[in-house]
Amino acid sequence: MEVRLKELSTRLGVPLRGDGESVVSRVAQLANADSRSLSFLGDSKYRDHLVHTRAGAVILKEADADLAKVAVLISENPYLTYARAACILYPAPSVVGGVHPSAVVDPSAQIDASAWIGPTAVVEAGAVVGARVFVGPGCILGEGVSVGDDSRLVARVTLCTGTQVGKRALIHPGAVIGREGFGFARDGSRWVRIPQIGRAVLGDDVEIGANTSVDRGAIENTVIGNGVKLDNHIQIGHNVVVGENTAVAANTGISGSTRIGRNCTIAGAVGMAGHLEIGDDVHFAGMAMVTRSFTQPGSYSSGIPAMPSGDWRRNVARFRHLDKLVRRVKQLEAAIEKMSEKKGRSES
Amino acid sequence: MEVRLKELSTRLGVPLRGDGESVVSRVAQLANADSRSLSFLGDSKYRDHLVHTRAGAVILKEADADLAKVAVLISENPYLTYARAACILYPAPSVVGGVHPSAVVDPSAQIDASAWIGPTAVVEAGAVVGARVFVGPGCILGEGVSVGDDSRLVARVTLCTGTQVGKRALIHPGAVIGREGFGFARDGSRWVRIPQIGRAVLGDDVEIGANTSVDRGAIENTVIGNGVKLDNHIQIGHNVVVGENTAVAANTGISGSTRIGRNCTIAGAVGMAGHLEIGDDVHFAGMAMVTRSFTQPGSYSSGIPAMPSGDWRRNVARFRHLDKLVRRVKQLEAAIEKMSEKKGRSES
Amino acid sequence: MEVRLKELSTRLGVPLRGDGESVVSRVAQLANADSRSLSFLGDSKYRDHLVHTRAGAVILKEADADLAKVAVLISENPYLTYARAACILYPAPSVVGGVHPSAVVDPSAQIDASAWIGPTAVVEAGAVVGARVFVGPGCILGEGVSVGDDSRLVARVTLCTGTQVGKRALIHPGAVIGREGFGFARDGSRWVRIPQIGRAVLGDDVEIGANTSVDRGAIENTVIGNGVKLDNHIQIGHNVVVGENTAVAANTGISGSTRIGRNCTIAGAVGMAGHLEIGDDVHFAGMAMVTRSFTQPGSYSSGIPAMPSGDWRRNVARFRHLDKLVRRVKQLEAAIEKMSEKKGRSES
Repeated sequence: MEVRLKELSTRLGVPLRGDGESVVSRVAQLANADSRSLSFLGDSKYRDHLVHTRAGAVILKEADADLAKVAVLISENPYLTYARAACILYPAPSVVGGVHPSAVVDPSAQIDASAWIGPTAVVEAGAVVGARVFVGPGCILGEGVSVGDDSRLVARVTLCTGTQVGKRALIHPGAVIGREGFGFARDGSRWVRIPQIGRAVLGDDVEIGANTSVDRGAIENTVIGNGVKLDNHIQIGHNVVVGENTAVAANTGISGSTRIGRNCTIAGAVGMAGHLEIGDDVHFAGMAMVTRSFTQPGSYSSGIPAMPSGDWRRNVARFRHLDKLVRRVKQLEAAIEKMSEKKGRSES
Repeated sequence: MEVRLKELSTRLGVPLRGDGESVVSRVAQLANADSRSLSFLGDSKYRDHLVHTRAGAVILKEADADLAKVAVLISENPYLTYARAACILYPAPSVVGGVHPSAVVDPSAQIDASAWIGPTAVVEAGAVVGARVFVGPGCILGEGVSVGDDSRLVARVTLCTGTQVGKRALIHPGAVIGREGFGFARDGSRWVRIPQIGRAVLGDDVEIGANTSVDRGAIENTVIGNGVKLDNHIQIGHNVVVGENTAVAANTGISGSTRIGRNCTIAGAVGMAGHLEIGDDVHFAGMAMVTRSFTQPGSYSSGIPAMPSGDWRRNVARFRHLDKLVRRVKQLEAAIEKMSEKKGRSES
Repeated sequence: MEVRLKELSTRLGVPLRGDGESVVSRVAQLANADSRSLSFLGDSKYRDHLVHTRAGAVILKEADADLAKVAVLISENPYLTYARAACILYPAPSVVGGVHPSAVVDPSAQIDASAWIGPTAVVEAGAVVGARVFVGPGCILGEGVSVGDDSRLVARVTLCTGTQVGKRALIHPGAVIGREGFGFARDGSRWVRIPQIGRAVLGDDVEIGANTSVDRGAIENTVIGNGVKLDNHIQIGHNVVVGENTAVAANTGISGSTRIGRNCTIAGAVGMAGHLEIGDDVHFAGMAMVTRSFTQPGSYSSGIPAMPSGDWRRNVARFRHLDKLVRRVKQLEAAIEKMSEKKGRSES
């Protein structure tokens, strides 16, 4: 998509310094940009790159503007402005309504005329597909599934029976939404499966990464709030609730019935036990092991960062006896205390 | 499915107090239940919910029965009885035999007439599909695969060449069973792939979660015992053996050639090294790091639970020098010892 | 495949002791081998198995050769020689060119006449598929994808728009290569998606495991070097670079923009933060938590290995106050120091 700088300035709501008639048609990093490229400087510590860039225009902060020899768009938050500019230069492909001849659509499914059902996709009985929805190749929409307007299932997405997806969702290949959760009752040494009656319900503007799974609820629903962003390989257990605009990075697992608040950020490979309560604005660092509720906003971490294996081996051997070490320190403290008292007495 | 309470009482083998002619047709939590709903009280600490529930009937322990104002089914293990009741109210859908016209079935495959091969499924040469098996949309059964009676492949399951699945399996979307394992010999800096000749062999009553992988063996087979339940996103390496009725929660990885006993429970995101021996009745807590064999029954844990990031940073910095700390404590102990001796001598 | 021992000896370049006219047709472990089986002894500590083996031939070190009563192939590296022998006995199936009638191939795609496009596969506009490429059932090749000669996409592989795969790749089911990376800019509490313009580019001789994801780059490409081997369930974030011949075990996650050197081995369930620099010949142990760059060759570890849950609970409770413990030890040291000085003074 080609855009004149003056139009970009208007649409982004940021002032332009430079030739408004110039055209940009792609984005690029400062070092690799050419005269048709839009670039940005997010962090002032890289401002030296401004001197040599050949970008057609650069989005940057007022304070960095003087160094640039090319057109600039001034923004207090260059990264956010860049994100919006990139959305203008690379608009989501428009959806042409229709059903590919190789798709298998149950006659009782309701497909909006503006929606696209791609090659080899399967849409089962009673499914409802909204306006301008893109159902990519190999997707499977189970019985009674609904997908809101303008959602995009890239390819090979599986929505199991009864799953509800809101508007403007973006769901990546391999995602499995609404499979029956992992619920069993013990009968001696055997496991008796508990039918999973709830659904998986996704709000609006949700993104689900590749090979991520959201299980459906046991009795009530599993709920993913509006604006939630889930990365790849995430496991969401049955009856989990994820609050609005919470973002979760790859490889994280959230066990059943845990409730997470709004605006949280959960880094990669975090593990959360079940039945926890996590408040709003809670941030977990990568690989955090979350075994209790955290209701207060804040940043929480855990784990032992990697170190040379020899050092690690020595320290871990000590960790195994940390409790004893503390007892030894207590004894030392008592001994010193006693000696000081004696000394005190003997000196007095 | 509608069931009269007297019939439910008989089929579950638990006594009923209340009107046996009443009908329930669904399950619900105590707080949300209506007169057509069956509910249960698993944990007596929530017994206050009994007072207000409008459930048609509640499964509970004798000791809690007095508080309920509705019909009750008395069980020593309400959760297990609930599981069985739910299986009655929500029976697995019956399978209608046939092959969807969009499925691709090799002429040499043997499909039982009572089995269903769903839309866009692919069944390759020599595969054998038992009675009443459900092969959902998008499933792929490779060459020489066999699937036992009454198994259910929900959708988009991949069974690679030679995989054997027992009876009454339940396999969820995205599962990949029997891919060639990850085996290489080093040739200088290059890796030479080792052909993986074994199979993945699953017993009866096995459940495999979404996006879970079970690799096939290098020479001998990878074996998943009867009644094993695997959650989502689990990695089972080549030549692993998992004993009967062991259950594994999501995101866990088990490295090649590790053997796990019967009736174990392995929580989420556990990591196991290869070539280990894990006994029967061993329980690993979430995120446990299993680097050696555990042959004795018991519960094992590892990891550092999350704490406020500032506290964590301070403590981790100390962990890096834990070995030195122990040496310092030893020196203190020696110093105190010496001082006590001197003092003892000087006092004597 | 049947092979005479004299031919095997020649092709492997290792000396034979025994009847060169004998034929082997499979591989087996020493204990289970019969006269048609080739076996190997990698580790001399298992040499007792040699006495009873009925193998047709055994690959072993010179030093172990005397114990065998069967034909032997002498190698300094029996495991590597075994790998090569197994590749001879179990050659990759040859590819017969063609397109299955159920596949959906865009007319603008360029498919080499010797390549196979399997049942229900989808090949979109502008894709290029090289000579002898095997595209298994259910694979999806997005717009503009290219796949190099002799590559094998086993089944249900998704290559998203623009992905480039080199020669002789082996990609397992459920892999998702080149999905748009996980990139957002914050706009108050909302997230604004950043279009991901880069590609995922895989070199030659790359292997990608089941359900593994490689995201495409934000602006520049994500790059997987020649000879890289990725196991199952691995997450590779946008703009990651993995150097030649590096091998990564299952369940590992590598966050965006991290660069990894050549010949590294990264064990299972490792987590790496983003924007790190990892040198050549770096080895991370399983579950390592990599939060900083490691540019020096070596072995690095982290984490607390599992222990009985009671011990763990006590030690972890102490870890929470490790910083305080160090302060207490410091105070003790100071007290002792002071007491020694006083004593010194009083004794002098």
